Amino acid sequence: MSNAPKPIETLITGDTVITMNKERTILSNAALAVEAGEILWIGDVNQAESLFTPAQRFDFKGKVIIPGLVNVHGHWAMTLVRGLVDDCALEQWLETIWRVEAALISPETVVVGSELAMIEMLRGGTTCAADMYWYYTEVTEASRRAGFRIVTGPSFAEIEGFEDYRNTNHSIAIEYLDHFADVPLVHPCIQAHSTYTTSPTTLELVKELVNQHGLLFVTHASESRGELELVQQKHGQRPIAVLDQFGLLGQHTLLAHCVHLTDEEISRLAETGTSVAHCPSSNLKLSSGIARVAEMLAQGVNVGIGTDGAASNNDLDLFHEAQLAALVQKGVTGDPKVLPAEKVFSMLTIDGAHAMGLSDKIGSLEVGKSADLAVIDFSSANLTPCYDYYSHLIYALSVGDVQDVMIAGQLLMHNREMLTLDEVAVRAEANRIAGEVLKL
Amino acid sequence: MSNAPKPIETLITGDTVITMNKERTILSNAALAVEAGEILWIGDVNQAESLFTPAQRFDFKGKVIIPGLVNVHGHWAMTLVRGLVDDCALEQWLETIWRVEAALISPETVVVGSELAMIEMLRGGTTCAADMYWYYTEVTEASRRAGFRIVTGPSFAEIEGFEDYRNTNHSIAIEYLDHFADVPLVHPCIQAHSTYTTSPTTLELVKELVNQHGLLFVTHASESRGELELVQQKHGQRPIAVLDQFGLLGQHTLLAHCVHLTDEEISRLAETGTSVAHCPSSNLKLSSGIARVAEMLAQGVNVGIGTDGAASNNDLDLFHEAQLAALVQKGVTGDPKVLPAEKVFSMLTIDGAHAMGLSDKIGSLEVGKSADLAVIDFSSANLTPCYDYYSHLIYALSVGDVQDVMIAGQLLMHNREMLTLDEVAVRAEANRIAGEVLKL
Repeated sequence: MSNAPKPIETLITGDTVITMNKERTILSNAALAVEAGEILWIGDVNQAESLFTPAQRFDFKGKVIIPGLVNVHGHWAMTLVRGLVDDCALEQWLETIWRVEAALISPETVVVGSELAMIEMLRGGTTCAADMYWYYTEVTEASRRAGFRIVTGPSFAEIEGFEDYRNTNHSIAIEYLDHFADVPLVHPCIQAHSTYTTSPTTLELVKELVNQHGLLFVTHASESRGELELVQQKHGQRPIAVLDQFGLLGQHTLLAHCVHLTDEEISRLAETGTSVAHCPSSNLKLSSGIARVAEMLAQGVNVGIGTDGAASNNDLDLFHEAQLAALVQKGVTGDPKVLPAEKVFSMLTIDGAHAMGLSDKIGSLEVGKSADLAVIDFSSANLTPCYDYYSHLIYALSVGDVQDVMIAGQLLMHNREMLTLDEVAVRAEANRIAGEVLKL
Repeated sequence: MSNAPKPIETLITGDTVITMNKERTILSNAALAVEAGEILWIGDVNQAESLFTPAQRFDFKGKVIIPGLVNVHGHWAMTLVRGLVDDCALEQWLETIWRVEAALISPETVVVGSELAMIEMLRGGTTCAADMYWYYTEVTEASRRAGFRIVTGPSFAEIEGFEDYRNTNHSIAIEYLDHFADVPLVHPCIQAHSTYTTSPTTLELVKELVNQHGLLFVTHASESRGELELVQQKHGQRPIAVLDQFGLLGQHTLLAHCVHLTDEEISRLAETGTSVAHCPSSNLKLSSGIARVAEMLAQGVNVGIGTDGAASNNDLDLFHEAQLAALVQKGVTGDPKVLPAEKVFSMLTIDGAHAMGLSDKIGSLEVGKSADLAVIDFSSANLTPCYDYYSHLIYALSVGDVQDVMIAGQLLMHNREMLTLDEVAVRAEANRIAGEVLKL
């Protein structure tokens, strides 16, 4: 009886599946068989019915299933100071934000802000996101409780007013890396805030940790002209050269922003396989500048897209961020062919996964990968009519078109309602904390 | 008994009303009394209860009421070719779009595309929009049926393949202007496609019509470098000089795009009181360039925001367009203080109304103006917490946060459902027409 249908955990069906596999296959009347959170099989819905007897079914009839989006750079808890300071430069903005944060942050507030961020990201189809912030252990636990996929870890920084925070504590860092080494949905990395907030001693320590643990290294680099000056004063070089000198460029490195790069620096990133987290909203809003993304891509640099924190964006809408990336590069280069829709969607998914060292697990809907996906309602007015899925995903979609979101086979959002996070309670707590901020 | 409550048609209450009056008053626990579509009174909700006995009530408890947005430039029916051609330059894009349009457009298809546009605009809080397209009479009738506020009228153009269309017919133009001179919600204007598609004879005719009827004049101007060359060939001058020569600059003129302006041209627009329709998505997507909006504002030019057609945007989300305008100007000028949130929101509302010659009727919530408004749910995750309304309206809002929309006292959208347009039927028709497009 080898032809008897095989019992499986979950069968997911939809009108269309955009796989983002290497061939960029788009399947019609498609089904995904899911077992233990992973995609066991993908193909025609009728064939699936004869092959499997699922314990549970998710039927997304009339909908389009896409890989969950990957947000390669952010500071989740900064949702709490969203819109507190606008329309001023990076340095002035940081001064205010850091002053408020120093007074505000505690394990409790950081968890509330991070839960608010996860809710907003899920509502926008994001299933995996990087976080760089204080109290990363507590945030990781909150992320696990929610069933969200997180890339985070110790974030070294020497910032005035934050000396006592645990991020800079080496033994806590080691404890974190050991504890979360094999925990599902948690992808530990090692972070340094930037080369202007880390001494050579700290960068040596970071390099040692990265080498010992073989993990992703994340840092801010070349975000603003002001940063270039500070790094020059501190290290006598430009940020990319400093990182290069400490052996911190390479396939396991993800650099956030990279707004101010020379031709040589772009070549060096390409040569070393270093990835870039492009955050156009934040870079534009703070007038940091416009990253040379079209040139990076032409040189073969892998670029993912990040929202940065909600304090400088001011939302965590990754679709919107992708549209902005595409539009701005066309406008600035004068070449409307750069960053075409399909490529930008790959930056949102598989390229983002690659940037975080997770392209074997997520970023596309393929056998053996995690069932991390978003379900899009393409019947909405702004997506009508539809000649090209990629075009609509990048140029016309609004977050409200995201209907359901699944991570590792678990549904986290259904019909825009949160299933694992208490949205009403989190919003109430965030509002209460904002009241405290206003008293500072 | 002079203190007896006065019977009125409608009382609208909400937690917050952002008036956009000259003082930028923001009212808490506010109410608007509405009679015959106009705002009769605005003030505290308790006072309203003692002053009026309304026949009907709209209670937007916990919500924020804003003036309806004003979309100063668009081609409504182009929703039908949304996403058909992307990632190519203006001239190549126009070639494809014009070929398809010449085969596709009829009074019936144009009405369907325009209804789809109105649905999308209403879902984004837009209550008044300009349209430049063929079959403007039929579109105006469709707009009236929907209860939407339209600015449109004869649009003169000499484009190959479109010779037979009625836009260029003088007697039909006159008939339209007479017929719709005093029709509620219809604001006739006189349009020329551009100086590269109109001969001197046509521009003379347009000028005559504008002067005779005392109406708004709308045209595309200085959108791309290619246009500058074509206009040079046709008229021996740059577009702004051509319009100036024909007496077509002034307080009743609205120029779409204005991407390529010299310092002198910016001064001339300021001097003459000419308004500009800024359409950043379309300009970036087609690599037309980036309009010098910050400089125009500094010189005193009045600038509204437009989505342009959905074929080059590819959505009609005016909030999104405003965010893009703000972000891009900060990035390009290197000055994060330009286009602050409150100013950008005024561009979306009262400045847009001024650009269309309608600032006495719409653009702010004040006594004597039309009850054109949108109701925003500020409790959504992406708007939590809230330190500043303007900041969230420009930097964090998503169209899904728009809950209800009213035009001249009539509710057109309630809880995101269309009340005067049959959304399901319109989408089905649009999809059917798209099937025809694919056969071309």
